Amino acid sequence: MTDNGLKYFEDYTPGATYDCGEVSVSEAQILSFARDFDPQPIHVDPAAAASGPFGGLIASGWHTAALVMRQLVEHYLPVGGSLASPGIDQIRWPVPVRPGDTLRVRATVQDARRSQSKPDRGIVTGVIEAVNQDGDLVMRATAVNFVLVRPEPQN
Amino acid sequence: MTDNGLKYFEDYTPGATYDCGEVSVSEAQILSFARDFDPQPIHVDPAAAASGPFGGLIASGWHTAALVMRQLVEHYLPVGGSLASPGIDQIRWPVPVRPGDTLRVRATVQDARRSQSKPDRGIVTGVIEAVNQDGDLVMRATAVNFVLVRPEPQN
Repeated sequence: MTDNGLKYFEDYTPGATYDCGEVSVSEAQILSFARDFDPQPIHVDPAAAASGPFGGLIASGWHTAALVMRQLVEHYLPVGGSLASPGIDQIRWPVPVRPGDTLRVRATVQDARRSQSKPDRGIVTGVIEAVNQDGDLVMRATAVNFVLVRPEPQN
Repeated sequence: MTDNGLKYFEDYTPGATYDCGEVSVSEAQILSFARDFDPQPIHVDPAAAASGPFGGLIASGWHTAALVMRQLVEHYLPVGGSLASPGIDQIRWPVPVRPGDTLRVRATVQDARRSQSKPDRGIVTGVIEAVNQDGDLVMRATAVNFVLVRPEPQN
Protein backbone atom coordinates (compact mmCIF):
# COMPACT_ATOMS: atom_id res chain seq x y z
CA MET A 1 0.00 0.00 0.00
CA THR A 2 1.30 3.50 -0.76
CA ASP A 3 1.52 6.18 1.91
CA ASN A 4 -1.71 7.52 0.43
CA GLY A 5 -3.51 4.30 1.38
CA LEU A 6 -3.82 3.13 -2.23
CA LYS A 7 -3.67 -0.58 -2.88
CA TYR A 8 -6.67 -1.75 -4.89
CA PHE A 9 -8.99 -0.26 -7.46
CA GLU A 10 -11.63 0.45 -4.82
CA ASP A 11 -9.22 2.78 -3.02
CA TYR A 12 -9.13 5.30 -5.88
CA THR A 13 -11.82 7.92 -5.25
CA PRO A 14 -12.88 10.08 -8.20
CA GLY A 15 -12.19 13.70 -7.36
CA ALA A 16 -9.59 12.90 -4.73
CA THR A 17 -6.11 14.45 -5.04
CA TYR A 18 -3.10 12.52 -3.75
CA ASP A 19 0.14 14.26 -2.80
CA CYS A 20 3.04 12.44 -4.44
CA GLY A 21 5.89 14.24 -2.72
CA GLU A 22 8.63 16.30 -4.29
CA VAL A 23 11.78 15.75 -6.30
CA SER A 24 14.70 18.03 -7.13
CA VAL A 25 16.83 17.96 -10.24
CA SER A 26 20.42 19.14 -10.64
CA GLU A 27 22.25 20.42 -13.70
CA ALA A 28 24.38 17.25 -13.69
CA GLN A 29 21.25 15.09 -13.79
CA ILE A 30 19.72 17.17 -16.59
CA LEU A 31 22.91 16.83 -18.65
CA SER A 32 23.27 13.10 -17.99
CA PHE A 33 19.71 12.22 -18.97
CA ALA A 34 19.81 14.41 -22.06
CA ARG A 35 23.16 13.05 -23.27
CA ASP A 36 21.61 9.58 -23.20
CA PHE A 37 18.19 10.35 -24.63
CA ASP A 38 17.63 13.92 -25.84
CA PRO A 39 20.91 15.53 -26.92
CA GLN A 40 19.50 18.81 -28.17
CA PRO A 41 21.58 21.94 -27.42
CA ILE A 42 18.95 23.34 -25.01
CA HIS A 43 19.39 20.19 -22.88
CA VAL A 44 23.10 19.30 -23.19
CA ASP A 45 25.01 22.51 -23.97
CA PRO A 46 24.85 25.13 -21.20
CA ALA A 47 26.62 27.79 -23.30
CA ALA A 48 24.39 27.34 -26.35
CA ALA A 49 21.33 27.12 -24.10
CA ALA A 50 22.21 30.42 -22.42
CA SER A 51 21.81 32.26 -25.72
CA GLY A 52 18.86 30.14 -26.81
CA PRO A 53 15.09 30.59 -26.57
CA PHE A 54 14.91 29.71 -22.85
CA GLY A 55 17.91 31.74 -21.67
CA GLY A 56 19.55 28.71 -20.08
CA LEU A 57 19.68 24.97 -19.83
CA ILE A 58 16.32 23.20 -19.44
CA ALA A 59 15.47 19.57 -18.73
CA SER A 60 14.22 17.28 -21.46
CA GLY A 61 10.48 16.91 -21.13
CA TRP A 62 11.08 13.15 -21.02
CA HIS A 63 13.35 13.64 -18.03
CA THR A 64 10.62 15.59 -16.28
CA ALA A 65 8.14 12.82 -17.11
CA ALA A 66 10.53 10.18 -15.73
CA LEU A 67 11.07 12.14 -12.50
CA VAL A 68 7.31 12.46 -12.10
CA MET A 69 6.89 8.73 -12.74
CA ARG A 70 9.22 7.94 -9.87
CA GLN A 71 6.94 9.91 -7.54
CA LEU A 72 3.87 8.11 -8.87
CA VAL A 73 5.45 4.70 -8.26
CA GLU A 74 6.21 5.67 -4.68
CA HIS A 75 2.96 7.44 -3.82
CA TYR A 76 0.17 6.71 -6.30
CA LEU A 77 0.56 3.33 -8.00
CA PRO A 78 -0.01 0.27 -5.81
CA VAL A 79 3.09 -1.90 -5.43
CA GLY A 80 2.47 -5.11 -7.32
CA GLY A 81 -1.18 -4.18 -7.93
CA SER A 82 -0.47 -2.01 -10.93
CA LEU A 83 -0.86 -3.87 -14.21
CA ALA A 84 1.09 -1.39 -16.31
CA SER A 85 -0.44 1.38 -18.31
CA PRO A 86 -2.03 1.25 -21.74
CA GLY A 87 -0.95 4.80 -22.32
CA ILE A 88 -0.86 8.47 -21.53
CA ASP A 89 -2.93 11.26 -23.00
CA GLN A 90 -1.98 14.87 -23.51
CA ILE A 91 1.33 15.46 -21.85
CA ARG A 92 1.99 19.18 -21.63
CA TRP A 93 5.13 20.99 -20.44
CA PRO A 94 3.92 24.59 -20.12
CA VAL A 95 6.97 25.93 -18.22
CA PRO A 96 10.51 24.54 -18.52
CA VAL A 97 12.29 22.71 -15.69
CA ARG A 98 15.67 24.27 -14.86
CA PRO A 99 18.69 23.11 -12.82
CA GLY A 100 17.97 23.23 -9.09
CA ASP A 101 14.19 23.14 -9.46
CA THR A 102 12.13 21.21 -6.95
CA LEU A 103 8.92 19.75 -8.31
CA ARG A 104 5.91 18.78 -6.23
CA VAL A 105 3.78 16.09 -7.84
CA ARG A 106 0.08 15.44 -7.33
CA ALA A 107 -2.41 13.08 -8.87
CA THR A 108 -6.16 13.68 -9.08
CA VAL A 109 -8.46 10.77 -9.91
CA GLN A 110 -10.66 11.83 -12.78
CA ASP A 111 -12.44 8.55 -13.39
CA ALA A 112 -12.43 5.02 -11.97
CA ARG A 113 -14.47 2.23 -13.50
CA ARG A 114 -14.43 -1.55 -13.63
CA SER A 115 -13.11 -3.14 -16.78
CA GLN A 116 -15.89 -4.66 -18.89
CA SER A 117 -13.64 -7.27 -20.46
CA LYS A 118 -11.37 -8.19 -17.52
CA PRO A 119 -13.23 -8.53 -14.21
CA ASP A 120 -10.04 -8.65 -12.11
CA ARG A 121 -9.25 -5.00 -12.70
CA GLY A 122 -10.41 -1.43 -12.88
CA ILE A 123 -9.36 1.44 -15.09
CA VAL A 124 -8.18 4.53 -13.24
CA THR A 125 -7.76 7.79 -15.14
CA GLY A 126 -5.73 10.39 -13.29
CA VAL A 127 -4.62 13.93 -13.96
CA ILE A 128 -0.95 14.16 -13.02
CA GLU A 129 0.52 17.59 -12.28
CA ALA A 130 3.99 18.79 -11.32
CA VAL A 131 4.52 22.28 -9.93
CA ASN A 132 7.88 23.95 -9.32
CA GLN A 133 9.02 25.88 -6.24
CA ASP A 134 7.54 29.09 -7.69
CA GLY A 135 4.12 27.53 -8.14
CA ASP A 136 4.42 27.20 -11.92
CA LEU A 137 2.85 24.16 -13.51
CA VAL A 138 5.72 22.44 -15.36
CA MET A 139 3.92 19.29 -16.46
CA ARG A 140 0.38 18.05 -16.79
CA ALA A 141 -0.62 14.65 -18.14
CA THR A 142 -3.60 12.36 -18.15
CA ALA A 143 -2.57 8.82 -17.24
CA VAL A 144 -4.64 5.68 -17.64
CA ASN A 145 -3.76 2.78 -15.33
CA PHE A 146 -5.12 -0.69 -14.77
CA VAL A 147 -5.41 -1.55 -11.06
CA LEU A 148 -6.45 -4.88 -9.52
CA VAL A 149 -9.79 -4.99 -7.71
CA ARG A 150 -9.81 -6.00 -4.05
CA PRO A 151 -9.84 -9.79 -3.80
CA GLU A 152 -12.96 -11.48 -2.40
CA PRO A 153 -12.43 -12.85 1.12
CA GLN A 154 -11.59 -16.55 0.96
CA ASN A 155 -13.55 -19.06 3.05
CA MET B 1 20.09 19.11 -41.32
CA THR B 2 19.15 15.54 -40.42
CA ASP B 3 19.96 12.60 -42.72
CA ASN B 4 16.34 12.86 -43.84
CA GLY B 5 16.98 16.35 -45.23
CA LEU B 6 14.93 18.06 -42.52
CA LYS B 7 16.07 21.48 -41.39
CA TYR B 8 13.23 24.00 -41.58
CA PHE B 9 9.46 23.90 -41.31
CA GLU B 10 9.09 23.90 -45.11
CA ASP B 11 10.95 20.58 -45.29
CA TYR B 12 8.22 18.67 -43.43
CA THR B 13 5.80 17.23 -45.99
CA PRO B 14 2.40 16.11 -44.74
CA GLY B 15 1.99 12.41 -45.45
CA ALA B 16 5.71 11.74 -45.70
CA THR B 17 7.24 9.04 -43.49
CA TYR B 18 10.82 9.46 -42.27
CA ASP B 19 12.94 6.48 -41.20
CA CYS B 20 14.54 7.26 -37.85
CA GLY B 21 16.84 4.26 -37.60
CA GLU B 22 16.90 1.57 -34.96
CA VAL B 23 17.95 1.15 -31.37
CA SER B 24 18.49 -1.92 -29.20
CA VAL B 25 17.96 -2.22 -25.48
CA SER B 26 19.67 -4.62 -23.06
CA GLU B 27 18.44 -6.04 -19.77
CA ALA B 28 21.11 -3.97 -17.96
CA GLN B 29 19.77 -0.78 -19.56
CA ILE B 30 16.18 -1.67 -18.72
CA LEU B 31 17.12 -2.30 -15.08
CA SER B 32 19.23 0.86 -14.81
CA PHE B 33 16.57 3.18 -16.19
CA ALA B 34 13.82 1.60 -14.10
CA ARG B 35 15.82 1.74 -10.85
CA ASP B 36 16.17 5.48 -11.39
CA PHE B 37 12.69 6.30 -12.59
CA ASP B 38 10.16 3.45 -12.56
CA PRO B 39 11.05 0.87 -9.90
CA GLN B 40 8.04 -1.39 -10.31
CA PRO B 41 8.71 -5.16 -10.02
CA ILE B 42 7.93 -5.76 -13.72
CA HIS B 43 10.80 -3.36 -14.58
CA VAL B 44 13.42 -3.96 -11.86
CA ASP B 45 12.98 -7.50 -10.52
CA PRO B 46 13.61 -10.24 -13.12
CA ALA B 47 12.43 -13.03 -10.78
CA ALA B 48 9.18 -11.31 -9.82
CA ALA B 49 8.65 -10.25 -13.44
CA ALA B 50 9.03 -13.86 -14.65
CA SER B 51 5.96 -14.90 -12.67
CA GLY B 52 4.11 -11.65 -13.39
CA PRO B 53 1.56 -10.66 -16.03
CA PHE B 54 4.14 -10.32 -18.83
CA GLY B 55 6.12 -13.51 -18.14
CA GLY B 56 9.39 -11.61 -17.86
CA LEU B 57 11.08 -8.28 -17.43
CA ILE B 58 9.77 -5.43 -19.59
CA ALA B 59 11.05 -1.91 -20.15
CA SER B 60 9.36 1.05 -18.54
CA GLY B 61 7.21 2.78 -21.11
CA TRP B 62 9.13 5.96 -20.26
CA HIS B 63 12.37 4.20 -21.17
CA THR B 64 10.89 3.22 -24.52
CA ALA B 65 9.78 6.82 -25.05
CA ALA B 66 13.26 8.10 -24.19
CA LEU B 67 14.93 5.63 -26.58
CA VAL B 68 12.54 6.73 -29.32
CA MET B 69 13.29 10.39 -28.56
CA ARG B 70 16.99 9.78 -29.14
CA GLN B 71 16.17 8.52 -32.64
CA LEU B 72 13.96 11.54 -33.31
CA VAL B 73 16.72 13.94 -32.27
CA GLU B 74 19.13 12.25 -34.66
CA HIS B 75 16.81 11.77 -37.64
CA TYR B 76 13.64 13.87 -37.40
CA LEU B 77 14.13 17.04 -35.36
CA PRO B 78 16.32 19.72 -36.96
CA VAL B 79 19.47 20.46 -34.98
CA GLY B 80 19.09 23.88 -33.45
CA GLY B 81 15.91 24.54 -35.41
CA SER B 82 13.64 22.73 -33.03
CA LEU B 83 12.03 25.06 -30.52
CA ALA B 84 11.03 22.36 -28.03
CA SER B 85 7.68 20.71 -27.89
CA PRO B 86 4.50 21.98 -26.27
CA GLY B 87 3.49 18.40 -25.66
CA ILE B 88 2.61 14.92 -26.75
CA ASP B 89 -0.79 13.43 -27.39
CA GLN B 90 -1.84 9.84 -26.90
CA ILE B 91 1.21 7.75 -26.15
CA ARG B 92 0.32 4.07 -26.43
CA TRP B 93 2.49 1.04 -25.61
CA PRO B 94 0.50 -1.84 -27.15
CA VAL B 95 3.23 -4.49 -26.86
CA PRO B 96 5.94 -4.56 -24.17
CA VAL B 97 9.63 -4.00 -24.91
CA ARG B 98 11.82 -6.83 -23.64
CA PRO B 99 15.58 -7.25 -23.10
CA GLY B 100 17.42 -7.63 -26.41
CA ASP B 101 14.69 -6.04 -28.50
CA THR B 102 15.65 -3.86 -31.45
CA LEU B 103 13.21 -1.07 -32.25
CA ARG B 104 12.88 0.66 -35.58
CA VAL B 105 11.48 4.16 -35.33
CA ARG B 106 9.59 6.09 -37.97
CA ALA B 107 7.83 9.44 -38.04
CA THR B 108 4.96 10.37 -40.34
CA VAL B 109 4.01 14.02 -40.74
CA GLN B 110 0.30 14.33 -40.11
CA ASP B 111 -0.01 18.09 -40.29
CA ALA B 112 2.26 21.09 -40.85
CA ARG B 113 0.99 24.63 -40.54
CA ARG B 114 2.40 28.08 -39.88
CA SER B 115 1.90 29.49 -36.42
CA GLN B 116 -0.71 32.24 -36.35
CA SER B 117 0.81 33.99 -33.35
CA LYS B 118 4.55 33.51 -34.02
CA PRO B 119 5.55 34.07 -37.65
CA ASP B 120 9.06 32.65 -37.21
CA ARG B 121 7.81 29.09 -36.80
CA GLY B 122 5.53 26.31 -37.92
CA ILE B 123 3.71 23.63 -36.00
CA VAL B 124 4.50 20.08 -37.11
CA THR B 125 2.32 17.23 -35.89
CA GLY B 126 3.87 13.82 -36.37
CA VAL B 127 2.79 10.26 -35.69
CA ILE B 128 5.77 8.49 -34.13
CA GLU B 129 5.89 4.70 -34.25
CA ALA B 130 8.36 2.12 -32.94
CA VAL B 131 8.25 -1.47 -34.18
CA ASN B 132 10.26 -4.37 -32.75
CA GLN B 133 12.23 -7.03 -34.63
CA ASP B 134 9.06 -9.15 -34.95
CA GLY B 135 7.09 -6.35 -36.55
CA ASP B 136 5.01 -5.62 -33.45
CA LEU B 137 4.14 -2.00 -32.79
CA VAL B 138 5.56 -1.27 -29.31
CA MET B 139 4.87 2.45 -29.16
CA ARG B 140 2.76 4.99 -30.96
CA ALA B 141 2.57 8.67 -30.08
CA THR B 142 1.44 11.90 -31.62
CA ALA B 143 4.06 14.60 -31.15
CA VAL B 144 3.64 18.32 -31.69
CA ASN B 145 6.81 20.28 -32.46
CA PHE B 146 7.60 23.88 -33.25
CA VAL B 147 10.08 24.23 -36.12
CA LEU B 148 11.65 27.43 -37.47
CA VAL B 149 10.59 28.57 -40.93
CA ARG B 150 13.28 28.96 -43.58
CA PRO B 151 14.88 32.40 -43.25
CA GLU B 152 14.30 34.91 -46.05
CA PRO B 153 17.40 35.46 -48.20
CA GLN B 154 19.24 38.58 -47.04
CA ASN B 155 20.19 41.31 -49.52
